[in-house]
Amino acid sequence: MPSFPYQEIKPPQRILLGPGPSNVHPRVQQAMMAPVLGHMDPYFYTVMEDIMNLLRYVFRTKNELTFPISATGSAGMEAGLCNFLEPGDVAVIADNGFFAERMINIALRLGVEVIRLDAEWGRIIEPEAIEAALKSRKKVKLLALVHAETSTGVLQPLGEAAKLARQYDALLLVDAVTSLGGHELAIDDWGIDICYSGSQKCISCPPGLSPITVNQKAMDTLPNRSHAVPSYYFDLSLLSTYWIRDKGQRAYHHTAPACMFYALHEALALIAEEGLETRIQRHLKHGAALQAGLEAMGLALHAQAGHRLSTLTTVCIPEDVDDARIRQRLLSDYNIEIGGGLGALKGKVWRIGLMGYSSTEQNILLFLSALERLLAEEGYKTETGAGITAAVQSLRK
Amino acid sequence: MPSFPYQEIKPPQRILLGPGPSNVHPRVQQAMMAPVLGHMDPYFYTVMEDIMNLLRYVFRTKNELTFPISATGSAGMEAGLCNFLEPGDVAVIADNGFFAERMINIALRLGVEVIRLDAEWGRIIEPEAIEAALKSRKKVKLLALVHAETSTGVLQPLGEAAKLARQYDALLLVDAVTSLGGHELAIDDWGIDICYSGSQKCISCPPGLSPITVNQKAMDTLPNRSHAVPSYYFDLSLLSTYWIRDKGQRAYHHTAPACMFYALHEALALIAEEGLETRIQRHLKHGAALQAGLEAMGLALHAQAGHRLSTLTTVCIPEDVDDARIRQRLLSDYNIEIGGGLGALKGKVWRIGLMGYSSTEQNILLFLSALERLLAEEGYKTETGAGITAAVQSLRK
Repeated sequence: MPSFPYQEIKPPQRILLGPGPSNVHPRVQQAMMAPVLGHMDPYFYTVMEDIMNLLRYVFRTKNELTFPISATGSAGMEAGLCNFLEPGDVAVIADNGFFAERMINIALRLGVEVIRLDAEWGRIIEPEAIEAALKSRKKVKLLALVHAETSTGVLQPLGEAAKLARQYDALLLVDAVTSLGGHELAIDDWGIDICYSGSQKCISCPPGLSPITVNQKAMDTLPNRSHAVPSYYFDLSLLSTYWIRDKGQRAYHHTAPACMFYALHEALALIAEEGLETRIQRHLKHGAALQAGLEAMGLALHAQAGHRLSTLTTVCIPEDVDDARIRQRLLSDYNIEIGGGLGALKGKVWRIGLMGYSSTEQNILLFLSALERLLAEEGYKTETGAGITAAVQSLRK
Repeated sequence: MPSFPYQEIKPPQRILLGPGPSNVHPRVQQAMMAPVLGHMDPYFYTVMEDIMNLLRYVFRTKNELTFPISATGSAGMEAGLCNFLEPGDVAVIADNGFFAERMINIALRLGVEVIRLDAEWGRIIEPEAIEAALKSRKKVKLLALVHAETSTGVLQPLGEAAKLARQYDALLLVDAVTSLGGHELAIDDWGIDICYSGSQKCISCPPGLSPITVNQKAMDTLPNRSHAVPSYYFDLSLLSTYWIRDKGQRAYHHTAPACMFYALHEALALIAEEGLETRIQRHLKHGAALQAGLEAMGLALHAQAGHRLSTLTTVCIPEDVDDARIRQRLLSDYNIEIGGGLGALKGKVWRIGLMGYSSTEQNILLFLSALERLLAEEGYKTETGAGITAAVQSLRK
């Protein structure tokens, strides 16, 4: 027996309104109770086939390579970059948020020359800037953008970017961690070559998986690499031999996280039942209501108007209000988690997520009333009930 | 609604006697039902602290850097190699099994010069070969060995290897995927610098996490790297800023897989309750009984005598017996999964795991009686009950 104490796990039941994870539907959590199977079990393969089909539905793609990486969202980012970039390549990458910076960080580790698309944190990258960067070099291998920047609350338009990527013969890689299953996203129609997400945001599965989809055009570049993909675990060609049945055979790559696959299957089934379009409209409606409520309380939204996420709202912290104390009180008094600012926005904004199973009317109303009370205690007074009234008006429109 | 069918998940309840995953205790699966928390939640930090302490107990180490990588066992291998090797380094790596080969594959992707320690698949690497390789170059950065080779069933002795690594100033990295929690392993006493495992073998947690431990001597080499660690996701210095509280602060690195952490916590708590030494003795006793039973049935064990794993037994498939049909019948008639041969041993051996919650007397007796019947149908006759009789004798010793 060990000589140190350890606890019995009894986590509090939080309302997760941060930048992710979101709350998980009871059916999804229940799915994890199904018996663990080996990663080569014939029944397990049928679960994997379902997951691929359901992910193609949610990504709106016919891409054969559409499956979850067996690790969290940042692993999808790394898989997306390390397979399609190698030393000597040039990549044009957004530089307008924390996760955009992480893409740059990873690309630099790979020995890639990075051309940064600067924009203020909270603003989109304009097509003119993308085009200027794409034509600044003889050959840009890849253009990388964050569709839904979880640090700034900005929704990056992708249509024009995809046209430009095609025009300049660059692959378009998109980070859809905070948009997949919550915002409009159409891989094939929009012409996105590589896209990854996370399980724990708008899909409302527990964290641990990173869905990725890659089209044939991008896959066809892999045999032309000069260097082996530096990662074995994230090597998409190898992963494909496990996920995609070739003449009835599958090759062992790694021991698949069975319970996480069950959870993802159930979370995707719930999206299919709700209908993807209905779900996206729900996120839009709730995001608008929350934002109307915050503005009615006199608070300023941080993200550029017209380009705000409905899944994650950044709101400026009023002067003389204690960031950490408000978040701590939300947690201790209401069991509500919201996010603080990341990187350059630390201490300047709060990040309020309304994703998947967390995106409900009740959560909006509870959060706004809690915030009103806590702000009042900090000396920031608003008209009583103004936030809730505006939110309800928005919801009933 | 999607236009394609998908199923409700109802996996069969298998008896997992393959190379992993092993069966999971109901308490471990139940733990995954605890509410998902954010990765920066104060309660979640207490779970992480427990996990680190419990892992130190199981690894028998005081290493501060002792935590799970948020991905499966192969990710631990990659993390162990990519942090401590870089282009231009020389590594001496075992080449006597499938997972040893995987280490070589990863090291080569990293641009490392690899000196292979060849041995027949099924035999250990002898200390003389290790010393010859270590002194063949001016400076070997790292010696990598597989403690428990899941492809061959061989238990690699580590004491002499650790002495040699110290003598030649090389770091010793050990793959303990199939030994941690099931075989004797003492990181600090034996002088192992870097060691990783998987959650789904002798720890009997579902697959998805890879515990790793690294001592200060190895960590002190990181600032001397010429190149950045090529992976962001596996960068141990960054992961440490999340796992190890520095002046009360933790830095966000990735969204931790909360439910998997709960499961690992409970699986480690079960090891603590059983007692690590008792658990190891249980694995030894059951492994010996299985092997006695197989030999009494006239079957040959593949691994070198005196160096056999108790957690995974490789047995030679008799001539004229259909490998795939036997495994398929075990699955369909008995719900028992065992493993086929990997790589060079494909079609030549079966791999029978007795790990964690799967390592029980009942499983041994059921498996031996099932195998006897199925072998008889293939025309391979044994004395009725010989296997079970020998196994019971071994168990009652």
